[in-house]
Amino acid sequence: MSAHSFDALVQALRRLPGVGVRSAQRMAFHLLQHDREGAVLLARSLEAAVSQVRHCVRCHTFTEDEICVTCSDPRRDASKLCVVETPADQAALERTAAFKGMYFVLMGRLSPLDGVGPRDIGLGKLIERISDGVVQEVILATNFTAEGEATAHVIAQALKSRGLSVTRLARGVPAGSELEYVDLGTIAHALVDRR
Amino acid sequence: MSAHSFDALVQALRRLPGVGVRSAQRMAFHLLQHDREGAVLLARSLEAAVSQVRHCVRCHTFTEDEICVTCSDPRRDASKLCVVETPADQAALERTAAFKGMYFVLMGRLSPLDGVGPRDIGLGKLIERISDGVVQEVILATNFTAEGEATAHVIAQALKSRGLSVTRLARGVPAGSELEYVDLGTIAHALVDRR
Repeated sequence: MSAHSFDALVQALRRLPGVGVRSAQRMAFHLLQHDREGAVLLARSLEAAVSQVRHCVRCHTFTEDEICVTCSDPRRDASKLCVVETPADQAALERTAAFKGMYFVLMGRLSPLDGVGPRDIGLGKLIERISDGVVQEVILATNFTAEGEATAHVIAQALKSRGLSVTRLARGVPAGSELEYVDLGTIAHALVDRR
Repeated sequence: MSAHSFDALVQALRRLPGVGVRSAQRMAFHLLQHDREGAVLLARSLEAAVSQVRHCVRCHTFTEDEICVTCSDPRRDASKLCVVETPADQAALERTAAFKGMYFVLMGRLSPLDGVGPRDIGLGKLIERISDGVVQEVILATNFTAEGEATAHVIAQALKSRGLSVTRLARGVPAGSELEYVDLGTIAHALVDRR
Protein backbone atom coordinates (compact mmCIF):
# COMPACT_ATOMS: atom_id res chain seq x y z
CA MET A 1 0.00 0.00 0.00
CA SER A 2 1.53 3.24 -1.12
CA ALA A 3 -0.92 5.53 0.67
CA HIS A 4 0.87 6.81 3.75
CA SER A 5 -2.19 8.63 5.08
CA PHE A 6 -4.20 5.40 4.86
CA ASP A 7 -1.68 3.64 7.09
CA ALA A 8 -1.66 6.61 9.47
CA LEU A 9 -5.46 6.40 9.68
CA VAL A 10 -5.28 2.68 10.49
CA GLN A 11 -2.80 3.40 13.29
CA ALA A 12 -5.01 6.17 14.68
CA LEU A 13 -8.11 3.92 14.61
CA ARG A 14 -6.21 1.27 16.59
CA ARG A 15 -6.21 3.60 19.60
CA LEU A 16 -9.94 3.03 19.94
CA PRO A 17 -10.70 0.43 22.64
CA GLY A 18 -11.38 -3.04 21.25
CA VAL A 19 -10.07 -2.24 17.77
CA GLY A 20 -7.21 -4.37 16.43
CA VAL A 21 -5.32 -4.01 13.18
CA ARG A 22 -7.87 -5.97 11.09
CA SER A 23 -10.84 -3.99 12.37
CA ALA A 24 -8.92 -0.75 11.89
CA GLN A 25 -8.13 -1.68 8.27
CA ARG A 26 -11.76 -2.59 7.65
CA MET A 27 -12.90 0.71 9.17
CA ALA A 28 -10.41 2.78 7.16
CA PHE A 29 -11.36 0.96 3.94
CA HIS A 30 -15.06 1.43 4.62
CA LEU A 31 -14.73 5.14 5.38
CA LEU A 32 -12.55 5.94 2.37
CA GLN A 33 -14.37 3.72 -0.12
CA HIS A 34 -17.99 4.03 0.98
CA ASP A 35 -18.45 6.82 3.50
CA ARG A 36 -16.09 9.79 3.16
CA GLU A 37 -18.88 12.00 4.42
CA GLY A 38 -18.93 9.88 7.60
CA ALA A 39 -15.16 10.24 7.92
CA VAL A 40 -15.40 14.04 7.76
CA LEU A 41 -18.30 14.00 10.21
CA LEU A 42 -16.31 11.83 12.62
CA ALA A 43 -13.27 14.11 12.37
CA ARG A 44 -15.39 17.17 13.14
CA SER A 45 -17.24 15.42 15.98
CA LEU A 46 -13.94 14.40 17.56
CA GLU A 47 -12.59 17.94 17.40
CA ALA A 48 -15.82 19.45 18.73
CA ALA A 49 -15.99 16.96 21.61
CA VAL A 50 -12.33 17.42 22.57
CA SER A 51 -12.67 21.20 22.63
CA GLN A 52 -16.11 21.41 24.27
CA VAL A 53 -16.55 18.48 26.64
CA ARG A 54 -15.28 19.06 30.18
CA HIS A 55 -16.22 17.88 33.65
CA CYS A 56 -19.08 19.22 35.75
CA VAL A 57 -17.53 20.94 38.78
CA ARG A 58 -20.11 19.38 41.10
CA CYS A 59 -20.57 15.77 39.92
CA HIS A 60 -17.60 15.30 37.61
CA THR A 61 -19.62 13.94 34.66
CA PHE A 62 -19.13 15.10 31.07
CA THR A 63 -20.77 18.43 30.30
CA GLU A 64 -20.29 21.46 28.09
CA ASP A 65 -21.20 23.87 30.88
CA GLU A 66 -19.73 24.71 34.28
CA ILE A 67 -22.44 22.64 36.00
CA CYS A 68 -24.33 19.82 34.29
CA VAL A 69 -28.08 19.69 33.72
CA THR A 70 -28.69 17.20 36.53
CA CYS A 71 -26.72 19.16 39.12
CA SER A 72 -28.45 22.41 38.23
CA ASP A 73 -31.97 20.95 38.35
CA PRO A 74 -33.69 22.49 41.43
CA ARG A 75 -36.40 19.79 41.49
CA ARG A 76 -33.92 17.06 42.42
CA ASP A 77 -33.42 15.91 46.00
CA ALA A 78 -30.01 17.30 47.00
CA SER A 79 -29.95 15.27 50.24
CA LYS A 80 -29.26 12.03 48.35
CA LEU A 81 -26.05 11.51 46.37
CA CYS A 82 -25.63 8.45 44.17
CA VAL A 83 -22.03 7.47 43.33
CA VAL A 84 -21.60 5.74 39.94
CA GLU A 85 -18.59 4.71 37.85
CA THR A 86 -19.45 6.20 34.45
CA PRO A 87 -22.01 8.44 32.72
CA ALA A 88 -23.44 5.24 31.13
CA ASP A 89 -24.18 3.88 34.61
CA GLN A 90 -25.83 7.17 35.54
CA ALA A 91 -27.94 6.94 32.37
CA ALA A 92 -29.02 3.39 33.34
CA LEU A 93 -30.15 4.62 36.77
CA GLU A 94 -31.97 7.58 35.22
CA ARG A 95 -33.88 5.25 32.90
CA THR A 96 -35.40 3.53 35.93
CA ALA A 97 -37.00 6.84 37.03
CA ALA A 98 -36.67 5.45 40.57
CA PHE A 99 -34.09 7.95 41.81
CA LYS A 100 -34.58 11.70 42.04
CA GLY A 101 -31.42 12.66 43.92
CA MET A 102 -28.04 13.92 42.74
CA TYR A 103 -25.09 12.02 41.30
CA PHE A 104 -21.33 11.87 41.60
CA VAL A 105 -19.61 10.23 38.64
CA LEU A 106 -16.20 8.71 39.46
CA MET A 107 -15.26 8.45 35.76
CA GLY A 108 -13.58 5.14 36.46
CA ARG A 109 -13.05 2.58 39.21
CA LEU A 110 -10.23 1.58 41.49
CA SER A 111 -7.93 -0.73 39.60
CA PRO A 112 -4.50 -1.05 41.24
CA LEU A 113 -3.28 -3.37 38.45
CA ASP A 114 -3.88 -0.60 35.90
CA GLY A 115 -2.42 2.02 38.23
CA VAL A 116 -5.81 3.60 39.02
CA GLY A 117 -5.75 4.69 42.65
CA PRO A 118 -8.15 6.68 44.90
CA ARG A 119 -6.83 9.97 43.56
CA ASP A 120 -7.64 9.03 39.94
CA ILE A 121 -11.31 8.41 40.71
CA GLY A 122 -11.63 11.78 42.44
CA LEU A 123 -12.09 10.55 46.01
CA GLY A 124 -10.92 13.93 47.36
CA LYS A 125 -13.43 15.68 45.16
CA LEU A 126 -16.20 13.36 46.37
CA ILE A 127 -15.38 14.10 50.01
CA GLU A 128 -15.47 17.81 49.25
CA ARG A 129 -18.81 17.34 47.47
CA ILE A 130 -20.49 15.53 50.38
CA SER A 131 -19.28 18.15 52.85
CA ASP A 132 -21.77 20.74 51.61
CA GLY A 133 -24.06 20.16 54.63
CA VAL A 134 -26.99 19.21 52.39
CA VAL A 135 -26.11 15.62 51.46
CA GLN A 136 -27.57 13.22 54.06
CA GLU A 137 -27.20 9.87 52.30
CA VAL A 138 -24.55 8.54 49.90
CA ILE A 139 -25.76 5.61 47.77
CA LEU A 140 -22.87 3.56 46.36
CA ALA A 141 -23.94 2.34 42.91
CA THR A 142 -20.60 1.16 41.53
CA ASN A 143 -20.75 -2.07 39.54
CA PHE A 144 -20.96 -5.45 41.27
CA THR A 145 -17.65 -6.55 39.78
CA ALA A 146 -14.50 -7.14 41.84
CA GLU A 147 -13.22 -3.66 41.00
CA GLY A 148 -16.58 -1.99 41.56
CA GLU A 149 -16.96 -3.69 44.96
CA ALA A 150 -13.45 -2.64 45.95
CA THR A 151 -14.23 0.92 44.90
CA ALA A 152 -17.45 0.91 46.97
CA HIS A 153 -15.54 -0.49 49.96
CA VAL A 154 -12.82 2.18 49.82
CA ILE A 155 -15.38 4.99 49.48
CA ALA A 156 -17.47 3.59 52.34
CA GLN A 157 -14.35 3.50 54.56
CA ALA A 158 -13.47 7.08 53.65
CA LEU A 159 -16.98 8.38 54.39
CA LYS A 160 -17.61 6.33 57.55
CA SER A 161 -16.60 8.90 60.14
CA ARG A 162 -18.46 11.80 58.57
CA GLY A 163 -21.88 11.28 60.09
CA LEU A 164 -23.54 10.40 56.77
CA SER A 165 -25.69 7.44 55.94
CA VAL A 166 -23.73 5.34 53.41
CA THR A 167 -25.77 2.69 51.58
CA ARG A 168 -25.12 0.24 48.74
CA LEU A 169 -27.50 -0.94 46.01
CA ALA A 170 -29.15 -4.22 47.08
CA ARG A 171 -27.68 -7.47 45.81
CA GLY A 172 -30.25 -10.12 44.98
CA VAL A 173 -32.15 -12.14 42.41
CA PRO A 174 -32.75 -10.13 39.20
CA ALA A 175 -36.39 -9.32 38.40
CA GLY A 176 -38.00 -11.89 36.10
CA SER A 177 -35.43 -14.63 36.73
CA GLU A 178 -36.00 -18.24 37.83
CA LEU A 179 -33.98 -19.46 40.82
CA GLU A 180 -32.90 -22.58 38.91
CA TYR A 181 -30.88 -20.44 36.50
CA VAL A 182 -29.50 -17.87 38.95
CA ASP A 183 -25.84 -18.33 39.98
CA LEU A 184 -25.11 -19.55 43.51
CA GLY A 185 -23.35 -16.38 44.69
CA THR A 186 -26.39 -14.28 43.83
CA ILE A 187 -28.78 -16.64 45.66
CA ALA A 188 -26.48 -16.73 48.70
CA HIS A 189 -26.39 -12.92 48.82
CA ALA A 190 -30.18 -12.75 48.39
CA LEU A 191 -30.56 -15.11 51.38
CA VAL A 192 -28.24 -13.05 53.56
CA ASP A 193 -29.93 -9.77 52.57
CA ARG A 194 -33.49 -11.18 52.85
CA ARG A 195 -36.11 -8.80 54.15
CA MET B 1 -26.17 13.44 29.56
CA SER B 2 -26.04 17.17 28.97
CA ALA B 3 -23.03 17.12 26.63
CA HIS B 4 -24.41 17.51 23.13
CA SER B 5 -21.02 17.09 21.47
CA PHE B 6 -20.51 13.80 23.34
CA ASP B 7 -23.75 12.44 21.88
CA ALA B 8 -22.77 13.73 18.43
CA LEU B 9 -19.45 11.90 18.74
CA VAL B 10 -21.23 8.66 19.68
CA GLN B 11 -23.46 9.01 16.60
CA ALA B 12 -20.45 9.65 14.36
CA LEU B 13 -18.58 6.62 15.76
CA ARG B 14 -21.60 4.43 14.99
CA ARG B 15 -20.95 4.93 11.29
CA LEU B 16 -17.84 2.77 11.63
CA PRO B 17 -18.51 -0.81 10.48
CA GLY B 18 -19.18 -3.21 13.34
CA VAL B 19 -19.69 -0.47 15.93
CA GLY B 20 -23.04 -0.39 17.75
CA VAL B 21 -24.27 2.12 20.27
CA ARG B 22 -22.58 0.46 23.28
CA SER B 23 -19.17 0.24 21.58
CA ALA B 24 -19.52 3.82 20.36
CA GLN B 25 -20.26 5.03 23.89
CA ARG B 26 -17.29 3.09 25.23
CA MET B 27 -15.03 4.55 22.53
CA ALA B 28 -16.22 8.11 23.13
CA PHE B 29 -15.82 7.72 26.91
CA HIS B 30 -12.32 6.26 26.50
CA LEU B 31 -11.16 9.00 24.13
CA LEU B 32 -12.51 11.88 26.21
CA GLN B 33 -11.55 10.49 29.61
CA HIS B 34 -8.24 8.76 28.90
CA ASP B 35 -6.92 9.64 25.43
CA ARG B 36 -7.78 13.12 24.16
CA GLU B 37 -4.47 13.12 22.32
CA GLY B 38 -5.62 10.00 20.46
CA ALA B 39 -8.91 11.71 19.62
CA VAL B 40 -7.11 14.69 18.09
CA LEU B 41 -4.74 12.35 16.21
CA LEU B 42 -7.70 10.39 14.84
CA ALA B 43 -9.47 13.57 13.74
CA ARG B 44 -6.36 14.76 11.88
CA SER B 45 -5.70 11.34 10.33
CA LEU B 46 -9.27 11.20 9.04
CA GLU B 47 -9.01 14.63 7.48
CA ALA B 48 -5.62 13.90 5.94
CA ALA B 49 -6.80 10.57 4.51
CA VAL B 50 -10.02 12.04 3.10
CA SER B 51 -8.16 14.87 1.40
CA GLN B 52 -5.15 12.87 0.16
CA VAL B 53 -6.24 9.30 -0.58
CA ARG B 54 -7.55 8.72 -4.09
CA HIS B 55 -7.62 5.86 -6.56
CA CYS B 56 -4.74 4.77 -8.77
CA VAL B 57 -5.80 5.45 -12.37
CA ARG B 58 -4.40 2.08 -13.47
CA CYS B 59 -5.30 -0.45 -10.77
CA HIS B 60 -7.91 1.47 -8.77
CA THR B 61 -6.28 0.87 -5.36
CA PHE B 62 -5.82 3.59 -2.75
CA THR B 63 -2.87 5.88 -3.42
CA GLU B 64 -1.82 9.46 -2.85
CA ASP B 65 -0.35 9.76 -6.35
CA GLU B 66 -1.74 9.54 -9.87
CA ILE B 67 -0.33 6.00 -10.23
CA CYS B 68 0.42 3.73 -7.26
CA VAL B 69 3.84 2.33 -6.37
CA THR B 70 3.02 -1.16 -7.66
CA CYS B 71 1.72 0.05 -11.04
CA SER B 72 4.73 2.32 -11.56
CA ASP B 73 7.31 -0.36 -10.70
CA PRO B 74 9.12 -1.24 -13.98
CA ARG B 75 10.45 -4.54 -12.58
CA ARG B 76 6.97 -6.07 -12.36
CA ASP B 77 5.61 -8.40 -15.06
CA ALA B 78 2.99 -6.33 -16.91
CA SER B 79 1.71 -9.35 -18.86
CA LYS B 80 -0.01 -10.78 -15.76
CA LEU B 81 -2.88 -8.98 -14.05
CA CYS B 82 -4.24 -10.25 -10.76
CA VAL B 83 -7.80 -9.15 -9.89
CA VAL B 84 -8.49 -8.83 -6.14
CA GLU B 85 -11.37 -7.45 -4.10
CA THR B 86 -9.60 -5.10 -1.68
CA PRO B 87 -6.16 -3.60 -0.91
CA ALA B 88 -6.00 -6.03 2.06
CA ASP B 89 -6.29 -8.97 -0.35
CA GLN B 90 -3.55 -7.46 -2.51
CA ALA B 91 -1.37 -7.11 0.60
CA ALA B 92 -1.97 -10.80 1.45
CA LEU B 93 -0.83 -11.84 -2.05
CA GLU B 94 2.20 -9.55 -1.85
CA ARG B 95 3.26 -11.13 1.44
CA THR B 96 3.56 -14.50 -0.33
CA ALA B 97 6.23 -13.01 -2.65
CA ALA B 98 4.95 -15.57 -5.19
CA PHE B 99 3.49 -13.09 -7.68
CA LYS B 100 5.43 -10.44 -9.55
CA GLY B 101 2.74 -9.21 -11.93
CA MET B 102 0.35 -6.27 -11.76
CA TYR B 103 -2.93 -5.90 -9.88
CA PHE B 104 -6.41 -4.60 -10.41
CA VAL B 105 -8.30 -3.86 -7.21
CA LEU B 106 -12.08 -4.01 -7.56
CA MET B 107 -12.61 -2.16 -4.25
CA GLY B 108 -15.57 -4.39 -3.54
CA ARG B 109 -17.43 -7.43 -4.84
CA LEU B 110 -20.66 -8.07 -6.65
CA SER B 111 -23.47 -8.10 -4.14
CA PRO B 112 -26.89 -7.64 -5.76
CA LEU B 113 -28.62 -7.72 -2.36
CA ASP B 114 -26.65 -4.63 -1.30
CA GLY B 115 -27.16 -3.00 -4.69
CA VAL B 116 -23.55 -3.53 -5.79
CA GLY B 117 -23.57 -4.26 -9.52
CA PRO B 118 -20.84 -4.69 -12.18
CA ARG B 119 -20.52 -0.93 -12.60
CA ASP B 120 -19.76 -0.39 -8.88
CA ILE B 121 -16.80 -2.77 -8.96
CA GLY B 122 -15.32 -0.99 -11.99
CA LEU B 123 -15.85 -3.76 -14.56
CA GLY B 124 -15.70 -1.22 -17.40
CA LYS B 125 -12.44 0.12 -16.00
CA LEU B 126 -11.04 -3.40 -15.77
CA ILE B 127 -11.91 -4.11 -19.43
CA GLU B 128 -10.24 -0.85 -20.43
CA ARG B 129 -7.21 -1.81 -18.32
CA ILE B 130 -6.75 -5.25 -19.95
CA SER B 131 -7.08 -3.77 -23.43
CA ASP B 132 -3.62 -2.21 -23.28
CA GLY B 133 -2.17 -4.96 -25.47
CA VAL B 134 0.38 -5.95 -22.82
CA VAL B 135 -1.77 -8.03 -20.43
CA GLN B 136 -1.76 -11.68 -21.49
CA GLU B 137 -3.24 -13.40 -18.46
CA VAL B 138 -5.88 -12.30 -15.96
CA ILE B 139 -5.73 -14.16 -12.64
CA LEU B 140 -9.00 -13.95 -10.72
CA ALA B 141 -8.12 -13.82 -7.01
CA THR B 142 -11.45 -12.73 -5.56
CA ASN B 143 -12.39 -14.45 -2.30
CA PHE B 144 -13.80 -17.98 -2.27
CA THR B 145 -17.06 -16.81 -0.76
CA ALA B 146 -20.40 -16.90 -2.58
CA GLU B 147 -20.05 -13.23 -3.54
CA GLY B 148 -16.39 -13.56 -4.51
CA GLU B 149 -17.13 -16.59 -6.71
CA ALA B 150 -20.01 -14.76 -8.40
CA THR B 151 -17.71 -11.79 -9.02
CA ALA B 152 -15.05 -14.06 -10.55
CA HIS B 153 -17.71 -15.71 -12.74
CA VAL B 154 -19.06 -12.40 -14.05
CA ILE B 155 -15.56 -11.09 -14.80
CA ALA B 156 -14.59 -14.35 -16.53
CA GLN B 157 -17.71 -14.09 -18.72
CA ALA B 158 -16.95 -10.50 -19.62
CA LEU B 159 -13.33 -11.25 -20.56
CA LYS B 160 -13.99 -14.56 -22.38
CA SER B 161 -14.17 -13.24 -25.91
CA ARG B 162 -11.11 -11.02 -25.67
CA GLY B 163 -8.41 -13.55 -26.49
CA LEU B 164 -6.87 -13.46 -23.01
CA SER B 165 -6.02 -16.33 -20.73
CA VAL B 166 -8.35 -16.06 -17.69
CA THR B 167 -7.38 -18.18 -14.68
CA ARG B 168 -8.61 -18.59 -11.11
CA LEU B 169 -6.63 -19.28 -7.93
CA ALA B 170 -6.60 -23.04 -7.21
CA ARG B 171 -9.09 -24.42 -4.72
CA GLY B 172 -7.77 -27.19 -2.50
CA VAL B 173 -6.54 -28.38 0.87
CA PRO B 174 -4.79 -25.60 2.83
CA ALA B 175 -1.06 -26.10 3.47
CA GLY B 176 -0.36 -27.74 6.83
CA SER B 177 -3.86 -29.15 7.31
CA GLU B 178 -4.92 -32.71 8.06
CA LEU B 179 -7.61 -34.18 5.82
CA GLU B 180 -9.61 -35.35 8.84
CA TYR B 181 -10.28 -31.73 9.81
CA VAL B 182 -10.81 -30.23 6.35
CA ASP B 183 -14.42 -29.56 5.33
CA LEU B 184 -16.04 -31.81 2.74
CA GLY B 185 -16.50 -29.14 0.07
CA THR B 186 -12.78 -28.33 0.11
CA ILE B 187 -11.78 -32.01 -0.20
CA ALA B 188 -14.28 -32.52 -3.04
CA HIS B 189 -12.86 -29.52 -4.92
CA ALA B 190 -9.29 -30.76 -4.30
CA LEU B 191 -10.25 -34.12 -5.80
CA VAL B 192 -11.81 -32.53 -8.89
CA ASP B 193 -8.84 -30.20 -9.39
CA ARG B 194 -6.22 -32.90 -8.67
CA ARG B 195 -3.07 -32.67 -10.70
